Amino acid sequence: MPLQFDPPSGTRDFLAAELETRQRAFAVIDRVYTSYGFEPLQTPAFERLDVLMGKYGDEGDKLIFKILRRGEHEASGEADLALRYDLTVPLARVAAAYGSRLPSPYKRYALGPVWRADRPGKGRYREFTQCDLDTLGSASLLADAEVVCAQNEALTGLGVPGFGIKLNSRLVLTGLLEVFGVPAELGPGVLASLDKLDKLAPAEVRAELAGRGLAEDRAGELVEVISAPDSEERVRAALKPSETGAAGLEQVDGLLSLVSGQVPDGRVTFTPGMVRGLSYYTGPIWELVTPVVTGSIGGGGRYDHLIADLGGPDVPATGAALGIERILAALPGSEGGRSRLDVAVTVMGETLAARAFAFAGLARAAGLRAAVYLGSSGKLGRQLKWASDSGARWCLLYGAAEDAAGTVTVRDMNSGEQTEVPVGALAAYLAGLAAGG
Amino acid sequence: MPLQFDPPSGTRDFLAAELETRQRAFAVIDRVYTSYGFEPLQTPAFERLDVLMGKYGDEGDKLIFKILRRGEHEASGEADLALRYDLTVPLARVAAAYGSRLPSPYKRYALGPVWRADRPGKGRYREFTQCDLDTLGSASLLADAEVVCAQNEALTGLGVPGFGIKLNSRLVLTGLLEVFGVPAELGPGVLASLDKLDKLAPAEVRAELAGRGLAEDRAGELVEVISAPDSEERVRAALKPSETGAAGLEQVDGLLSLVSGQVPDGRVTFTPGMVRGLSYYTGPIWELVTPVVTGSIGGGGRYDHLIADLGGPDVPATGAALGIERILAALPGSEGGRSRLDVAVTVMGETLAARAFAFAGLARAAGLRAAVYLGSSGKLGRQLKWASDSGARWCLLYGAAEDAAGTVTVRDMNSGEQTEVPVGALAAYLAGLAAGG
Repeated sequence: MPLQFDPPSGTRDFLAAELETRQRAFAVIDRVYTSYGFEPLQTPAFERLDVLMGKYGDEGDKLIFKILRRGEHEASGEADLALRYDLTVPLARVAAAYGSRLPSPYKRYALGPVWRADRPGKGRYREFTQCDLDTLGSASLLADAEVVCAQNEALTGLGVPGFGIKLNSRLVLTGLLEVFGVPAELGPGVLASLDKLDKLAPAEVRAELAGRGLAEDRAGELVEVISAPDSEERVRAALKPSETGAAGLEQVDGLLSLVSGQVPDGRVTFTPGMVRGLSYYTGPIWELVTPVVTGSIGGGGRYDHLIADLGGPDVPATGAALGIERILAALPGSEGGRSRLDVAVTVMGETLAARAFAFAGLARAAGLRAAVYLGSSGKLGRQLKWASDSGARWCLLYGAAEDAAGTVTVRDMNSGEQTEVPVGALAAYLAGLAAGG
Repeated sequence: MPLQFDPPSGTRDFLAAELETRQRAFAVIDRVYTSYGFEPLQTPAFERLDVLMGKYGDEGDKLIFKILRRGEHEASGEADLALRYDLTVPLARVAAAYGSRLPSPYKRYALGPVWRADRPGKGRYREFTQCDLDTLGSASLLADAEVVCAQNEALTGLGVPGFGIKLNSRLVLTGLLEVFGVPAELGPGVLASLDKLDKLAPAEVRAELAGRGLAEDRAGELVEVISAPDSEERVRAALKPSETGAAGLEQVDGLLSLVSGQVPDGRVTFTPGMVRGLSYYTGPIWELVTPVVTGSIGGGGRYDHLIADLGGPDVPATGAALGIERILAALPGSEGGRSRLDVAVTVMGETLAARAFAFAGLARAAGLRAAVYLGSSGKLGRQLKWASDSGARWCLLYGAAEDAAGTVTVRDMNSGEQTEVPVGALAAYLAGLAAGG
C-alpha cells in the first residue's frame, strides 16, 4: 500500500472480514453484560480538555490527543478539547452530570474506541477499543462477584482458551506490608517491586526492595512468603495478626465462595503476589490470564474513591476491563470472513436486466442475501466467476433460452448442479432454499 | 445538569434507553444493506490533515476539527491530524489504498460518527452519525437501482412514515439548461436557484435567475416548465431536441422500471425540478422525503469522478446517504427504553447472599437477564422497589422462611402473585418462565 493512502500511524482500516469478526465478538460481550442487567453507555469521542488533563499522571497527559481551537482562535495554537483516553473519566463525568437520574446502583458497560498518542508497535495502537464494565453505588461484595462472573462468561463466550482468574485484595497486600513492618512511605514502591515477581527472579526483586530502603531480612521474608509454592497457606498464616489482612482474606474467600457456582472449579485462584499496578484499588482485585497471551487479557477490582478523584460523586465502585484488542488478536481468525451473498444473479444483456433485478428482490424477500451482476461483461464465465468470488451458494442464470422457456436456471455453486425453475415458482423455490440452507 | 459536567457543546451522552433505540435502528440498516451484498467498512476517527483539507470547500475546511501535533511539536500549535468530516473521503482513501484487494465492484456501507465544528443548534450536532451506502466500480444503472431499493427497504424497516423518493438526473438538468439556452457559465448558479423552487415562490426564483444574468423570458419559461402542475410532461416535451436530456430521461425511466417491482407504486416520482445541490453528481439523483421532517431525510446519486477528485482511483460510482440523525429524531421514541432485568433477586441478609447470587446465575443460564440486589437495605419493600425500578418481570424472594422450607418465592411483578418453588426445581421453573415469557 503506498504510504500516502495508509490510515494514520497507529490506526487501522477495518475491511469487512475483520470488522465482522470484531462485531461478532462485541455482540457476545453485549449479550453477556446485558444478561447481568448492565446497561450500555456511549459518550462523545472528545471531552473538554480540562476534564481529561491531570487524570492520568504526567506520562498519560502527554499521550492525550488535543484538538485545536477553531475559527479565530485557531491561530492561538491552543487546544480546548481532547480525544478520550479511556472510558472511566467519561463515566465519572456522566455520574456527576446525571446523578439521581441514573439507576442506583448504576451498572453500565461501555465498548468503544479510545485514543492515545503512544508510539505505535506490534499490538499497540493509537486508536483501539476498550471494553469496560462497572457498578457505581454498591459496596457489596456481590457487586464484585457479578463483575467477575460476567467477565468469565464473556471470555467463555468469546472462546478464549484455558483462561484463569487471579484473585487478590488490596487489603491482603496492605496487611502484608503491615505484618512485615514496611514503612508506610515505602508501601507503593514495595508493591510495585512485588508486582514484578512474575517476570523477575526472587533474588532480583529482593535486591530491588533493598534498593528501595527495605531492610534486607524483611525484603527476603516478604519475597519468600509471596513466591513460595505454598504461598497461599503462608500468607494466610502471616496475616493472622493484621485486622486489615484478615478483612482482605475475608473478601477473597467471600468472592471465591460467591463465584464458585458460576465459574468452573480451579479457574479463580487466590494469588497473594498479584498487585495490579494501579494504586486506586481499595478492595478485591483480579486479573485475567490465558497461556496464549503474554501478560493479562483483562482485570479489575474495587475502587471506592476513584470516581470522586476523577471529578464524579464519591460512590463505592467496582469494575473491570477486558483487553479486547489482545483477546481479538489471540482468537483464531475466521480467515476470509463470511461470504457476501447467498444468491448471485447473472445479467445477460440489457433487455433481461430488469427481470434479473427482480429475481434478486425475490431472493431477498425470501431472506437471502442477493444481488445482480453489476459489471459490463456479457460473458457467462466472467459472471460465474463474480458469483463464485462473492461466495454465493446459488447463482440464478437468466439468458435468452430461459427467457423463451419462462424459466430461471438455479445453479448450485458447490455441486455445479442446475435446476430449471418456472419463473412463477421462483419465489417458492427460493423460500425453500432459504429454509433448507 | 451543572455546565461543567455537560458533554462538550454539540455532542451527546447516550444513556441506555436512547442508545438502545439507536442501536436497534442501526441493526435494521445493517441487516438491509447486508442483504444486498454490501459489506461494512470502518475507518479511523481521524485522518492525516492533508487527506481532508481542500476536499470540502473553504467553508467545509473551517469546520474540520484539527488535532495538535504531540510531544516536542505541540508547542508549534500546528495540527497534523483531523477528525473525519464525512465517510466519503475515507472511502476514497481506502479505494486507493487497497485497490484490487477489494471486491469489484466494491459495494460498501459505513455507519459511524463524523465531526464538524458547526455552530450547535436544534438537531445540529458536532458529533453525529452518518450512514453511507456506495458502489464503486460499476457504471450500470442496476447499481443505482440497488442503492435506491436498499434505501427504500431501510426506511421501511425503520418505520419512517409515508416517505417518498424524488428522482431526477443531472443529464435532465443539463438538457434543460441546453434547450433553454442557458450559457454554460451560468449553469451552476441557475441550478442553485431552481433548487429553491420548493421553498420560494416561482416569481422569487424568476427574479433570482434574472439577477444571475439569465434573460427574463428564458428565466420565466424555465421556471414555468419546472414548477407547472404538469411539469413532467412539459419537461419531457421540452427535452426532445437535446441528446443529453434524452439520455437523462432514459436514466430516469430505466430506474423507475427497475425499482417498480420492489418499491410500492407511486413512491418514486420523477421530479425534474429536484437539483440536489452538490455539483459532483453525474447521472441519476434522488432525494428521500417524508411529511414528518422538513427538508430531506437522505438522498444520493451517481458521481462518476468524485472518488478520483478526492484522491482515489477514477472509478464510476453511485451511492447515497441516510440522514440518520433526522430520521431518528422523527421516529416515535420508545420512551423509557426496555427494562434492564427479567428477574430480580432479593438478598435478605449476608448468610443468604450466596444462594441469592446462585439463583441469579440459574436465571441467566435459562436465558433471562437477572441480577441480585446490590444495596445495603435489608428491607423487603426497598428491595421490591428496586426490582420494580429495574423493570423486572419476576422477583425471587429468599428469606429465612424460604431457607427453612427449602423453597424460593417467585413473585410475578405484574400480578403480585407468588409461587413457592422448591430450590431443586428452580432451574426448570425459570426455564419455563423464559420459554413462556
